[in-house]
Amino acid sequence: MKLRYIPLGGLGEVGRNMWALEWDGQVLVVDAGLMFPREEMHGVDLVIPDISYLLEPGRKILGIVLTHGHEDHIGALPFVLKRLNVPVYSARLTLGLVKPKLKEHRILREADLREVRMGDKVQLGPFNVEFIPVCHSIPDAAALAIRTPIGTVVYTGDFKLDDDPPEGRPTDLERLGQIGDQGVLMLLSDSTNAEREGHSGSERDLIEPFERLFREAPGRIIVATFASNIHRIQQLFTLAEQFGKRVAIAGRSLQTNVKTAQELGFLRVPAGMIVPLRQVEEVPPNKLLLLMAGSQGEPLSSLSRYANRSHPAVGARDGDWVVISATPIPGNETLVNRTINNLYKHGGEVFYSTTAKVHVSGHAYRDELRRMIETVRPRFFIPVHGEYRQLLHNSRLAAASGIAQANIKIIEDGQVIELTADSIALGEQIPAGYVFVDGLGIGDVEHAVLRDRGLLADDGMVIVTIGVDRGTGALRSGPELISRGFMEDDVSGEVLAEARRTVIHDLGRFQGEPELSVIRETIHDAVQRVIHRRTQRRPMVIPIVTDL
Amino acid sequence: MKLRYIPLGGLGEVGRNMWALEWDGQVLVVDAGLMFPREEMHGVDLVIPDISYLLEPGRKILGIVLTHGHEDHIGALPFVLKRLNVPVYSARLTLGLVKPKLKEHRILREADLREVRMGDKVQLGPFNVEFIPVCHSIPDAAALAIRTPIGTVVYTGDFKLDDDPPEGRPTDLERLGQIGDQGVLMLLSDSTNAEREGHSGSERDLIEPFERLFREAPGRIIVATFASNIHRIQQLFTLAEQFGKRVAIAGRSLQTNVKTAQELGFLRVPAGMIVPLRQVEEVPPNKLLLLMAGSQGEPLSSLSRYANRSHPAVGARDGDWVVISATPIPGNETLVNRTINNLYKHGGEVFYSTTAKVHVSGHAYRDELRRMIETVRPRFFIPVHGEYRQLLHNSRLAAASGIAQANIKIIEDGQVIELTADSIALGEQIPAGYVFVDGLGIGDVEHAVLRDRGLLADDGMVIVTIGVDRGTGALRSGPELISRGFMEDDVSGEVLAEARRTVIHDLGRFQGEPELSVIRETIHDAVQRVIHRRTQRRPMVIPIVTDL
Repeated sequence: MKLRYIPLGGLGEVGRNMWALEWDGQVLVVDAGLMFPREEMHGVDLVIPDISYLLEPGRKILGIVLTHGHEDHIGALPFVLKRLNVPVYSARLTLGLVKPKLKEHRILREADLREVRMGDKVQLGPFNVEFIPVCHSIPDAAALAIRTPIGTVVYTGDFKLDDDPPEGRPTDLERLGQIGDQGVLMLLSDSTNAEREGHSGSERDLIEPFERLFREAPGRIIVATFASNIHRIQQLFTLAEQFGKRVAIAGRSLQTNVKTAQELGFLRVPAGMIVPLRQVEEVPPNKLLLLMAGSQGEPLSSLSRYANRSHPAVGARDGDWVVISATPIPGNETLVNRTINNLYKHGGEVFYSTTAKVHVSGHAYRDELRRMIETVRPRFFIPVHGEYRQLLHNSRLAAASGIAQANIKIIEDGQVIELTADSIALGEQIPAGYVFVDGLGIGDVEHAVLRDRGLLADDGMVIVTIGVDRGTGALRSGPELISRGFMEDDVSGEVLAEARRTVIHDLGRFQGEPELSVIRETIHDAVQRVIHRRTQRRPMVIPIVTDL
Repeated sequence: MKLRYIPLGGLGEVGRNMWALEWDGQVLVVDAGLMFPREEMHGVDLVIPDISYLLEPGRKILGIVLTHGHEDHIGALPFVLKRLNVPVYSARLTLGLVKPKLKEHRILREADLREVRMGDKVQLGPFNVEFIPVCHSIPDAAALAIRTPIGTVVYTGDFKLDDDPPEGRPTDLERLGQIGDQGVLMLLSDSTNAEREGHSGSERDLIEPFERLFREAPGRIIVATFASNIHRIQQLFTLAEQFGKRVAIAGRSLQTNVKTAQELGFLRVPAGMIVPLRQVEEVPPNKLLLLMAGSQGEPLSSLSRYANRSHPAVGARDGDWVVISATPIPGNETLVNRTINNLYKHGGEVFYSTTAKVHVSGHAYRDELRRMIETVRPRFFIPVHGEYRQLLHNSRLAAASGIAQANIKIIEDGQVIELTADSIALGEQIPAGYVFVDGLGIGDVEHAVLRDRGLLADDGMVIVTIGVDRGTGALRSGPELISRGFMEDDVSGEVLAEARRTVIHDLGRFQGEPELSVIRETIHDAVQRVIHRRTQRRPMVIPIVTDL
């Protein structure tokens, strides 16, 4: 019998992390993340993994284990549970972040959520799952050591090494080392920063720069950070207390997370420190800290609306000091830059990663990745959580640490891996494509729709309506041409008039009774031809022929 | 009388650099650049400045002076000359790069191109323009010292300070200092890297890393760089000679530029070194250097097609060493990352700015910007060439160098500045919006078309055709619903059927003869309502009502 590793997301691209282990038809699922759509995925809201493999008959899904509460690890859970309502195991904060999502999807009541503490071991069929604490940019993050019938699989989850974090606890390298001593079959390791030399640094590195900001700011301080970075939010509350400031929170995700983290004991907020957003004007500017969502420049976020003064409660103004305590995720640079420009235009002072030390990464750099590999000393190694270049760089670190090249597999989603106690091999390819969520629809937008949206976005469309005589095929009404997204109406007239004349001319060549499909094709070609010659554009041409 | 500074592009955003000086209705224009469209400018090919101010009657345009041959300084010239055929003054290479563009637009013959050498002074009406050499990522780049009736205006152009460049010449700080000694009214200074501390570094810094690559590469070397970076291309040819390699060139822009630069004496290529692209397979891999366009990951570029093996002449393969000798322009990170992933997947080794020293910027960092200000010592200062945050940082350097805050103006395109020998003030706002080029059309795509393209891209569209009786208003045919870009056809049936039933129902409520416009509105609202309730999408709904 072979152990099967089933990657459903997170290999070869960023986000949508999800994978499974299978033994004798029994399946343990790890994480259920989503990905935010790329530019060419027009109109798509979210991208989730394809779980059709898990739904095939004859397979028993034992449960889903979540390593931590980031969207790229838990965001697809509501969609998955709707089709596969199995027990979910995770740490307290992670479940706390999951609950509002399930509630929003109206499936919280049916969900079977089981809280696990760090150090706990959970038996699921043939698998025994141990939760090991790791340091990451969210509290209560775990690595997993999964005992299987043929050996132990270690998954780092998302991690970094911070030996002395000001909040939370360090990655438990001692325990990972013990597990390594007992022999590890396979290590799955976070590759996000495998291109970056050195060490990611400690949250502690931010204390001094932030203290200086708090000491020197003449008025309000605004800090935008990831809503899930509870450790950093704790540091900011601690500083607020130290400097006698009150704190207001803008952004629904941030408000929800602060509330959840407080209730679950992950955030200590002195009584009376939080001031409702609508009352910020009553607090003296130099006594106010505003926490905001929107560190990625998202156009509808609190920070963007504050920056362009379209937020109902708070607007950027002269003397504000604004800290963007994050690095732009690739693809978001333009949005973040636009936000910074707006902040400066309104007279604020801005501190961001290009010009100030205001952020450290939550993912291990090369030195840390090396140390992880050398601590766990696995027989087999699969780099996970990254694009191909990042997986490759991590795999090279493994090779440099002495793992045989043949025991390292760089794979992409859907490539099953089959393991025995002393062999690793590529297995079958299973479906692992994109599932698009658009509004209420899941999977009803696929390639054809996106292709059409792309064509419509580039050149718009022209509709041609025409009525023909049922008997003779003679033109009875039209053609009329309507365009959208093609040319401004006040200048399109001449081109459309020529297209119209050409349609009439081309149809006039028919004798007898042409098929409707032939008429449609003739109209389509005539309009495309004229428009392309005159404009070099190719709008979508839609002939609508009525047979009268 | 006042001197007017007219910014038409390049302030508050990157690209599309163009401005003018006006004295008594006589206008000197500097540069005519384009901008590449942003993501939300669907289907737009290029963005050029609005020159309607220059075309207003009563204004005499004396000529256009070009500082250097980058697209963001010369790319709009063909469009401008078509409406305003005035003499163009520039250095030899810049004109060499302009000519193929004018030829492509079929206006080379009418164009009045006048070559200027560095150090030359050109008298244009009341303006005397001196060309001063600057170091930049293209040869033959100039700063301008423009004597006007009330004082000298210095424009740095795009520049950096490289005291000992391996190719080309350093920025002529001595001459700029002499002009400074004589007194400068206003300095317009490049702000691109005003956020970056320190010094941009020298092309010389790349010699050693490149030499090592050439020495150690086991097979083919591929270098992707900007087609206009002739100095770097020269270094690569020099290394190719040193290491006995032949050179092939992929990419039309690169081929054109290499040819132009060679003909004009800006590039020395040993005889017989260049091998045609179709013959690269005949050269032993370790004797081949391939220069490629596409360092920004542009999907149709040679590098992208080589990386995904869709290029007809060369494909990525095991053992190739690929150098991406550029930094991604903000917004292009995702495309560049995709290219790197593809290169690695095909077994190549890749060197790029995250992991290797393979590029230095052509724009001055903060230390260099300070030195420029201190050399020129102007009375008035306007930061140019950058987004607001960059302009602001440059203006702060000027203030720190002793220029009075009131004498520094951070402005955006279209904000005229009025100067006397001892005053600077904001003048009128003139048109300086985007002019979009889409195919052959210039300015026929504006806000309404882009809005429609955006809507179509997000949710697609639904066309509803219906025939009603001319007399009674009764339904005679349809409604039929056709969608594009909305939902996959195999699943849209049910939603569209419900929308159809609702249209029939809602139209059935009318008594007598409703107006066509009322029928259209009723159809539109019924379809929108059903679709939004069932999918939370808002496709564009287009009712087509035929009156039979």
